[in-house]
Amino acid sequence: MQRIALNTPYLIFVGDETRVTYAKTGRGIVDWRREHCAGQLRLSGEACDLGLPDMSVAEASSAGVGSLVVGTALVGGSIPPPWVATLAEAARAGIDIVAGLHTQLASIPELAAAAAAGGARLVDVRTPPPDLPVGTGKKRPGKRLLTVGTDCALGKKYTALQLEQDLRAAGAKADFRASGQTGIMIAGEGVPIDCVVADFISGAAEVLSPDNEPDHWDVIEGQGGIFHPGYAAVSHGLLIGSQPDAFVVCHAAGREQVEGWPHMPLPGIGDVIERTLQIGALTNPGIRCVGISVNTSTLPEGERREYLARLGKRYGLPAVDPLFTGAAAILDNL
Amino acid sequence: MQRIALNTPYLIFVGDETRVTYAKTGRGIVDWRREHCAGQLRLSGEACDLGLPDMSVAEASSAGVGSLVVGTALVGGSIPPPWVATLAEAARAGIDIVAGLHTQLASIPELAAAAAAGGARLVDVRTPPPDLPVGTGKKRPGKRLLTVGTDCALGKKYTALQLEQDLRAAGAKADFRASGQTGIMIAGEGVPIDCVVADFISGAAEVLSPDNEPDHWDVIEGQGGIFHPGYAAVSHGLLIGSQPDAFVVCHAAGREQVEGWPHMPLPGIGDVIERTLQIGALTNPGIRCVGISVNTSTLPEGERREYLARLGKRYGLPAVDPLFTGAAAILDNL
Repeated sequence: MQRIALNTPYLIFVGDETRVTYAKTGRGIVDWRREHCAGQLRLSGEACDLGLPDMSVAEASSAGVGSLVVGTALVGGSIPPPWVATLAEAARAGIDIVAGLHTQLASIPELAAAAAAGGARLVDVRTPPPDLPVGTGKKRPGKRLLTVGTDCALGKKYTALQLEQDLRAAGAKADFRASGQTGIMIAGEGVPIDCVVADFISGAAEVLSPDNEPDHWDVIEGQGGIFHPGYAAVSHGLLIGSQPDAFVVCHAAGREQVEGWPHMPLPGIGDVIERTLQIGALTNPGIRCVGISVNTSTLPEGERREYLARLGKRYGLPAVDPLFTGAAAILDNL
Repeated sequence: MQRIALNTPYLIFVGDETRVTYAKTGRGIVDWRREHCAGQLRLSGEACDLGLPDMSVAEASSAGVGSLVVGTALVGGSIPPPWVATLAEAARAGIDIVAGLHTQLASIPELAAAAAAGGARLVDVRTPPPDLPVGTGKKRPGKRLLTVGTDCALGKKYTALQLEQDLRAAGAKADFRASGQTGIMIAGEGVPIDCVVADFISGAAEVLSPDNEPDHWDVIEGQGGIFHPGYAAVSHGLLIGSQPDAFVVCHAAGREQVEGWPHMPLPGIGDVIERTLQIGALTNPGIRCVGISVNTSTLPEGERREYLARLGKRYGLPAVDPLFTGAAAILDNL
């Protein structure tokens, strides 16, 4: 297995985090994979409630929980000492510990000892699996859709998850393929493509969406942006390794510069479509753009439909906001 | 310092390698940086002679040698036990050990102990420096030329070194910038760009060719190929991080498939020029192609000049074989 693979069901660890935005990872898992969640572990009554049954480590162990997943983002990236005791208790009970922090879990001696004693794994979802191959460029059976973007952080993961859900609801075979840490926690497997060594990016993308049935869709979470000054290389490797039949361009209404790079103007949606078609043709000459997915939350509610209609007309493609209009129009175009 | 930086002068270690092709790294260092080479260390009289004075470790130590550089490629990538004793002797004498092998030098206990005792560094030129930044995309002062290619292994390093030499001979300020392991050993510094984590490729390229005087040329060694199914992502990140004013396309006469990827046809030189211009414009809208550099060694000697003339006419660019015609025609076009 060259992909990270997590043991379910999950116990979502919230700690004493009271701020909803910092518990976004846990929230995402509950939103998209409620069926993988056995319960939540909160260290205080004020901590965020994800709507799951509260569970102690002992209860989780009896319930057959496979992984304790740290569902909070940590400023500074390290684990507060009071949390370590609880994680160590779970590891001693044989429950895997899963996190996506800068600090490697195994570098915390108490945790490493507990995992060894309990036979649990410490899984850092930012650490790629070993022995990834170099990309072959060979066509694989199965259909693939990749979400790309004018920038980072504008809905590539959300759009892919929504399309997976819609495809399944329509009776199609479909799997979300996670290329980033939060996506991997949600899907229970994947490859953190931006953490892979340069020579293996497209090979990792090939591993991420392996051979499948001819009518099966892999819906692959995009990363970065093909015009991004920092992350374009990641996007390029993910694109040619994914060899998508179809792609959706994600955008955030009103964004005009690359987020965090104020000197870099955002590329146009048309530029992203053209460049993605050019590069993607290397491994799939049949690649086509099937839609535009926009986060319109910055626009007044009354203007969103008109904005999307204008965009759709301009590019001759369905333009949706998955949160506001759903993504059905893109599905119809598949 | 975010680049690997080696201590000179070098003692080139040849071991008992008798096959010239396997001593190519040592050969390259002598060819391009004779002034950095104090001597060679051969473990048998039959070993390749690089034309340097033979030196023992004791002699090298008295001569003030900074690094013992393993100048041979090893099938399997690990160091034969009889060699380890000599490397350990050098490390104990305070001489850095430099190699580009799959085996990490520090993983050999005898060598790790010797280096600690002698205060020597064990430098793996395939290990990128820590704390590389994410690419900014900001324009840096100084001029830059990047060698790109229709494929791997067709002269991108050689062409860059030749252009550095010619620029210097013409009185210009120029530095070869090494992006691969052999190049780093030759230049004495650089960043192994293909070993960098995906998110930091363009940032590593920015570090590789930092701010410089307005009339100074960085001649940057290219990697991979922008149409390569395995390594295109590396080429993309190196291109936008290098923000070259000028690039040279390298090619091997007669090659028709990607080497090692027999199912992938080689891209045309024109395709590589067009795609490099498109992608490179992100960080340097003034980017232009200044020449074509071809390894014509597979052609009969009598046909080479005509082949180059035909190519040059077709693309409206100087076409050279640095080994056969020199690279002066490209310099004239800079």
